[in-house]
Amino acid sequence: MTSVDLNADMGESFGPWNMGDDASLLKTITSANIACGFHAGDPDVMAKTMTLAAENGVGIGAHPGFPDLQGFGRRNMKVPHDTLRNMVRYQLGAAQGMADALGITVRHLKLHGALANMCSVDADMARACYQGALDVDPDIIIMVLAATKQEATVRDLGCKWVGEIFADRAYNDDGTLVDRSLPGAVIHDPAIAGPRILEMVRAGAIITESGKHIETSIDTICLHGDTPTAVQLAKSVRDSLTTGGISVTKFEL
Amino acid sequence: MTSVDLNADMGESFGPWNMGDDASLLKTITSANIACGFHAGDPDVMAKTMTLAAENGVGIGAHPGFPDLQGFGRRNMKVPHDTLRNMVRYQLGAAQGMADALGITVRHLKLHGALANMCSVDADMARACYQGALDVDPDIIIMVLAATKQEATVRDLGCKWVGEIFADRAYNDDGTLVDRSLPGAVIHDPAIAGPRILEMVRAGAIITESGKHIETSIDTICLHGDTPTAVQLAKSVRDSLTTGGISVTKFEL
Amino acid sequence: MTSVDLNADMGESFGPWNMGDDASLLKTITSANIACGFHAGDPDVMAKTMTLAAENGVGIGAHPGFPDLQGFGRRNMKVPHDTLRNMVRYQLGAAQGMADALGITVRHLKLHGALANMCSVDADMARACYQGALDVDPDIIIMVLAATKQEATVRDLGCKWVGEIFADRAYNDDGTLVDRSLPGAVIHDPAIAGPRILEMVRAGAIITESGKHIETSIDTICLHGDTPTAVQLAKSVRDSLTTGGISVTKFEL
Amino acid sequence: MTSVDLNADMGESFGPWNMGDDASLLKTITSANIACGFHAGDPDVMAKTMTLAAENGVGIGAHPGFPDLQGFGRRNMKVPHDTLRNMVRYQLGAAQGMADALGITVRHLKLHGALANMCSVDADMARACYQGALDVDPDIIIMVLAATKQEATVRDLGCKWVGEIFADRAYNDDGTLVDRSLPGAVIHDPAIAGPRILEMVRAGAIITESGKHIETSIDTICLHGDTPTAVQLAKSVRDSLTTGGISVTKFEL
Repeated sequence: MTSVDLNADMGESFGPWNMGDDASLLKTITSANIACGFHAGDPDVMAKTMTLAAENGVGIGAHPGFPDLQGFGRRNMKVPHDTLRNMVRYQLGAAQGMADALGITVRHLKLHGALANMCSVDADMARACYQGALDVDPDIIIMVLAATKQEATVRDLGCKWVGEIFADRAYNDDGTLVDRSLPGAVIHDPAIAGPRILEMVRAGAIITESGKHIETSIDTICLHGDTPTAVQLAKSVRDSLTTGGISVTKFEL
Repeated sequence: MTSVDLNADMGESFGPWNMGDDASLLKTITSANIACGFHAGDPDVMAKTMTLAAENGVGIGAHPGFPDLQGFGRRNMKVPHDTLRNMVRYQLGAAQGMADALGITVRHLKLHGALANMCSVDADMARACYQGALDVDPDIIIMVLAATKQEATVRDLGCKWVGEIFADRAYNDDGTLVDRSLPGAVIHDPAIAGPRILEMVRAGAIITESGKHIETSIDTICLHGDTPTAVQLAKSVRDSLTTGGISVTKFEL
Repeated sequence: MTSVDLNADMGESFGPWNMGDDASLLKTITSANIACGFHAGDPDVMAKTMTLAAENGVGIGAHPGFPDLQGFGRRNMKVPHDTLRNMVRYQLGAAQGMADALGITVRHLKLHGALANMCSVDADMARACYQGALDVDPDIIIMVLAATKQEATVRDLGCKWVGEIFADRAYNDDGTLVDRSLPGAVIHDPAIAGPRILEMVRAGAIITESGKHIETSIDTICLHGDTPTAVQLAKSVRDSLTTGGISVTKFEL
Repeated sequence: MTSVDLNADMGESFGPWNMGDDASLLKTITSANIACGFHAGDPDVMAKTMTLAAENGVGIGAHPGFPDLQGFGRRNMKVPHDTLRNMVRYQLGAAQGMADALGITVRHLKLHGALANMCSVDADMARACYQGALDVDPDIIIMVLAATKQEATVRDLGCKWVGEIFADRAYNDDGTLVDRSLPGAVIHDPAIAGPRILEMVRAGAIITESGKHIETSIDTICLHGDTPTAVQLAKSVRDSLTTGGISVTKFEL
């Protein structure tokens, strides 16, 4: 691997409420996952964010979530698969409409929050969501959590996909994330995050807390935008990769 | 004029709540205006309605409205023009996404409720909405209320458009609708509605209550789906037109 | 037991969409569970329904649910307990405000849909919801699904409560409902429903499909309002009870 | 006048999104207008804000607005008066429920945003809203924009009320606010705001840009919480008043 993509969730403001420092993060990342109005984002926020992302040469993705503004799409919902499929179609279509109007292309799709979490352990649910996206655009690139049911599902569907790992989360030996309630689960220190990710990208594997290597496709690194050290941590990851000889560029299939 | 289109609003159910008898009306009309989730409709309802419309050979249109479920998009809202433009982009994009997934094309767009009413007297507002639609699809056909600022706006924009008149509403001499609170404003009797519309289509003009002719482009007749006599009235209009030598077909530009 | 209450969910219309035949059902029932705007109902619907219920001498209850209009509160959501508690406080408060304005009292509370189902098997969740209601009104009567964790929770809380059984659902031997997908799970025949409920009320026990008796507190019978035979089934239950010497009256503690 | 109240809008966060620095402002003000979930606020935010306000000895008010989260209740909506009345009943009831649960009393009500603006020039609309509040609680104190139709309406209703002026807005000679687009319309400089308000309170009159005095009831001064200089401006107003011999205390009727 000589290059890797950096992605972050964007456009998570809503109406009068701001979230994250999109403008700063857009200088570091190469792909933006843009909220589609169900858990965050509204048409104005989407237009503004897409414009800003495009100006920074960042790849645009749709980031559909559960219809739950108050819960920010982070609360599990038990939704029939047909409804999930339609929800994803709708949100991807809306994102495409906004992008078309700006002369921009939506080239990838990543699931948000609880929808993503549920789909990382439930292949049938993942299939409903991804099929919804492929129904709308058979060439869309699905961004999946590496080494989860999400990855198994896109492999099974035979569609275009890229795998991601988290810059700021520790992994268990089975590839799942260390529970947030445990010490060390979240990596806040930019000085640690950068070198750690470089090591994983070089190894072509998730390296777990115990040191185990889980070989997987690391095409993109997920950076979070809503933590106090977000921008610094993003820069650290980018600098470590670049210094280590890994170029940071938009993923290409 | 040897042919005319019949349109009706469709897909106005939401979640567990049903509205209208879409299945029946789809046997009579030739174009369906499908709610896009802001004032009515949800992704499941949209998918179901589009499928049914396509099965009946009916043309599909997006029917964006204000984001106001409780008020069914019938309450005037004062929204900045940039926001209107983005609202229309979003809703049209969502409709296109749903349609793409089903192998169907969204070929026209018509504004709903209070949004339509406000745009029929405010050209700047109409322009913001229509421009939003054209940003997404320059070939979309805009369905306008004939002889209003809506029509003036599409003429000015130079885009594709069709003009509509109402099957069940009386007109004032200035082309506006007779206020609903006045007697005779709404035509409930199928035996009256049919011949009246035939006369207008033949004349190529809106015929007002006083008998005045307002020449205009009558490409499509709007039928309402949510009144007790809706289906009968629709059939009466269709029968009168057909018997009178006007074929009822999807508009073509 | 010489008297029993009949309850039904009411006020489940929303904006332009109607649901159920509240006016008819109000002639048969003695307690109404009124939606509070999160899964159904809006302030206008609440005012109208409460007025109608009071005119029929029917007891008024708040019927809080998940904030999920499209899913009608029937989709499980994983919500933190503090949020559940506040959700119930908010919805009960809103119902009380509407009732106060009309000179009516909200005397009971029953959970709706998925919120009720989840609380019937999760005592901690039930406690969060019921505690929210009791925070607002320590004298509110909680209506619980008899022989479930809901009942266990109110017994533990030591608050006022009444137990309900379903008029149209078959029971398993452990007191749970027979899954809707199985034959006989839902009783549609009014001729069967009435005598069956009379037998249970006389026995002071849920009688399961196998004939087992589960002794419990049957203070009220839940009638559904949204099925084709709803009104007939309600009348059958009422007639069977009355003929059998059980008076049908609002529960009193 | 020897004492005056200072009020500010509070609890305008929503779900994951924060707005304003309520904790800081609560140290300066004496009355808090708390959003009720329609334009901002949610049950969790309401509970947290009410608790914090009560801990600071600040009077609690309900702050109902239009049901328009994206527009933050700042977009005019044309809503039937019966619906307005029910909307206010619902929101006040919800606020009371949240407050009751915390052992706190909602003692005043102030309209928010576009709803307030429309009611300051439309007495019938103001009456519908205020009547809704009084239906729920005849003793509630209505906070009105002094010298507007809001004030005329409460005088006519004969209910309890207090009049407010803005700390940071310039006035025209007819008592309306100078349009935000004009220079000097908004006062950002804390050094100017404080002495200016002291002068008005001493005069018992709004002093317009031209120097004209409009005698009115100045019971409370409205401070904004969402501007960069908000906390400083609030302190300046408080300090000027206190130094000038006007005590800053919760209004009492």
